Amino acid sequence: MAESTDTDALVLSDDPLHPANHICELCAKFYTLGWVTGTGGGTSIRHGDKIYIAPSGVQKELMRPTDMFVMDFASKSYVRKPQTHKPSACTPLFLAAFTRGAGCCIHTHSQWAVLVTLLVERDFGKDACFEIEEIEQIKGIPRGRGKTGNLGYFERLRIPIIENTAHEEDLTESLEAAMEKYPDTYAVLVRRHGIYVWGDNVHKAKTQCESIDYILQLAVQMKQLGLPWTK
Amino acid sequence: MAESTDTDALVLSDDPLHPANHICELCAKFYTLGWVTGTGGGTSIRHGDKIYIAPSGVQKELMRPTDMFVMDFASKSYVRKPQTHKPSACTPLFLAAFTRGAGCCIHTHSQWAVLVTLLVERDFGKDACFEIEEIEQIKGIPRGRGKTGNLGYFERLRIPIIENTAHEEDLTESLEAAMEKYPDTYAVLVRRHGIYVWGDNVHKAKTQCESIDYILQLAVQMKQLGLPWTK
Amino acid sequence: MAESTDTDALVLSDDPLHPANHICELCAKFYTLGWVTGTGGGTSIRHGDKIYIAPSGVQKELMRPTDMFVMDFASKSYVRKPQTHKPSACTPLFLAAFTRGAGCCIHTHSQWAVLVTLLVERDFGKDACFEIEEIEQIKGIPRGRGKTGNLGYFERLRIPIIENTAHEEDLTESLEAAMEKYPDTYAVLVRRHGIYVWGDNVHKAKTQCESIDYILQLAVQMKQLGLPWTK
Amino acid sequence: MAESTDTDALVLSDDPLHPANHICELCAKFYTLGWVTGTGGGTSIRHGDKIYIAPSGVQKELMRPTDMFVMDFASKSYVRKPQTHKPSACTPLFLAAFTRGAGCCIHTHSQWAVLVTLLVERDFGKDACFEIEEIEQIKGIPRGRGKTGNLGYFERLRIPIIENTAHEEDLTESLEAAMEKYPDTYAVLVRRHGIYVWGDNVHKAKTQCESIDYILQLAVQMKQLGLPWTK
Repeated sequence: MAESTDTDALVLSDDPLHPANHICELCAKFYTLGWVTGTGGGTSIRHGDKIYIAPSGVQKELMRPTDMFVMDFASKSYVRKPQTHKPSACTPLFLAAFTRGAGCCIHTHSQWAVLVTLLVERDFGKDACFEIEEIEQIKGIPRGRGKTGNLGYFERLRIPIIENTAHEEDLTESLEAAMEKYPDTYAVLVRRHGIYVWGDNVHKAKTQCESIDYILQLAVQMKQLGLPWTK
Repeated sequence: MAESTDTDALVLSDDPLHPANHICELCAKFYTLGWVTGTGGGTSIRHGDKIYIAPSGVQKELMRPTDMFVMDFASKSYVRKPQTHKPSACTPLFLAAFTRGAGCCIHTHSQWAVLVTLLVERDFGKDACFEIEEIEQIKGIPRGRGKTGNLGYFERLRIPIIENTAHEEDLTESLEAAMEKYPDTYAVLVRRHGIYVWGDNVHKAKTQCESIDYILQLAVQMKQLGLPWTK
Repeated sequence: MAESTDTDALVLSDDPLHPANHICELCAKFYTLGWVTGTGGGTSIRHGDKIYIAPSGVQKELMRPTDMFVMDFASKSYVRKPQTHKPSACTPLFLAAFTRGAGCCIHTHSQWAVLVTLLVERDFGKDACFEIEEIEQIKGIPRGRGKTGNLGYFERLRIPIIENTAHEEDLTESLEAAMEKYPDTYAVLVRRHGIYVWGDNVHKAKTQCESIDYILQLAVQMKQLGLPWTK
Repeated sequence: MAESTDTDALVLSDDPLHPANHICELCAKFYTLGWVTGTGGGTSIRHGDKIYIAPSGVQKELMRPTDMFVMDFASKSYVRKPQTHKPSACTPLFLAAFTRGAGCCIHTHSQWAVLVTLLVERDFGKDACFEIEEIEQIKGIPRGRGKTGNLGYFERLRIPIIENTAHEEDLTESLEAAMEKYPDTYAVLVRRHGIYVWGDNVHKAKTQCESIDYILQLAVQMKQLGLPWTK
């Protein structure tokens, strides 16, 4: 019970951009985009030395700030843990992004992501990543951590794909391996599952996630029309 | 007239989660998802010893709490019957789910459901059920009544399909037969018609219905791209 | 100027179901369904001895009650004619429906309607009507004027198709011919153009239009998947 | 700092149709249509001797009037330049339309536009423009600057396509060349990128953009169904 009095101050704010409010607003929007259907997906924001995380198993479009988990980033211990909820199984995956400098991480079950992972496997093999080039929206993705600016129109976007596992937390190792192998990527696709997208801050994570989802949707439609992804 | 004075107390409440309010809010959302177009589909909630049911033939996105029918679950007699409406023909089907422990039952005319029933018939025959495996969203479906937890990623989701009939209430017998044959299922597809999905409570019925609809949509798109549903 | 003082009483009402308000609310909804994009489409309601008609060339989702034209049904003369607008070229087509007893008529440019007219022409010839059977949503369409009840699940839905003309008002003759040839129909498709749907009142016209659009969308998707419309 | 006090009067107004307010409302609508995903796309309005332009790199559905750039049309110098934003790289392209008499110019990344440019290239070659005929919605497009009325149903709609470049401003020359070669066009497609649509005023630009996007979406679906665009 101490939890509900001591720690509410961490999630109650009049500022719509406070992470506890912001996650709720983002997830309501993501629901209308089909990204977080049926309690799937999630969103996490780093705010100074704290990590705010949407809980597991809740209707993402109906969340309230008091539903949020809050973790101390340094110690990785929860400083707020709503007793009616389970922490998100995505937490170690979000932390992998935060450890590499991200300020926000979004996980979606977008059907375009799932379909692209299936198409890549069938057409290019299990070890292939998703590759596309010469689509304007590619310019919405940064060139890579520590690099200046965004990808150019003539540059190829590559998003690694990892195999799904029975338990979401077991994705951590292969997610981190993909991050090491593709140090410039801001996204990792998970076969038959969805995608993780992160960015330096909420604005970047959200707009990069939109740009990538746009590209994945376009890629599926290109396949249906017999149009190649690369030249 | 007695009806409109004696029984309004059953449907008037300030609580947005009161079943009479909740059904209205859910159906407005389901309308935007294309599930209850043109008065199609319906929703019913069990609340203690009472069943709340959306009426037949109304625009589902415009319903008001006073439109609701209320039935006594034990006696199966209406304790509230709005005189301007007809009771839903889905009522015996909803009751079949409530009898098996459901707390909420949703019926949609989702086009993805209709298309999947046609694809299964063409590709696997009239006796086949819909089967898919290794899709993350499968984890949104419980393993079965009396069993612990949800289906795993590597487990196969099976949803039985029954043949449509001229009159909706005539589906009851085959729906109940499918429930007996597939005791673990929380959904039954109706060929060329739609789907019934239920759950232990409103939260579960709604999120399971979303997860299944997501999987059905994905399955249709997989077919269009030549991707198999099972290995 | 007399118009704007004398006749505003015809369109100003606190009742959301007053035709001048109702047309605005319906068209805003139809815009989100893609039915009245780019000033296309229209809606008209008969209210006693008056016909209310949305104007031509306006953004249908932004209309206000004062934008409405009002016509005396007996004399076919306008009793309200907003000087900043042009009357709808659909007016004679709406009148054809009202003359046959309709209480509301909806015209959409739904892409599903356009695609179905093209598919019917290619696969069944220019003289064929659209035919489909054994789809539950068919039960949302009445059996015909003067007949009791709606179509049954095992009955075939037939919607005639007329050829488009350079000027919308020139469709009147062939629309009326189709109404004579198919006296039971509540809808006429217009090749490469859209559809007219009417009903005894607003509720019926709106829900029948939704049911038909649902069926047309399903029919297009069935074609893409190689599924036949009839047995 | 002078900027934020001297020039706020240019963007603060109670009139929802003031360009600074209107651009925000339009872009929020365009976001729901998928036209300005992930900071892509943009909108500009000419208002007397001033040009109002949405900034680069912002979430288009969240813009506020104070985010707007304002340029003096005669001198092409900014009279308002929010210090936290970058001016839109589309600016010279918008100016090309304004110079030819436009009152509003809209740039979208619509996926239908991108797919049509790919289909035209594959099926008709790199020099071909997009051509379609006998679709009712064509009547939503004016016949050409200085000409009376809109295209007729039996007239062919032609939209030129230019090749994309690494930097958006480098499109200006080929956009202007396309405007010269197709003096009647109100739109130019950009391969693998999107479309620019303009009109005499906001109403016309918005409804023409909707009509064209409708036609492009229909064209993609026609291709998927094997239906030709012209006779």
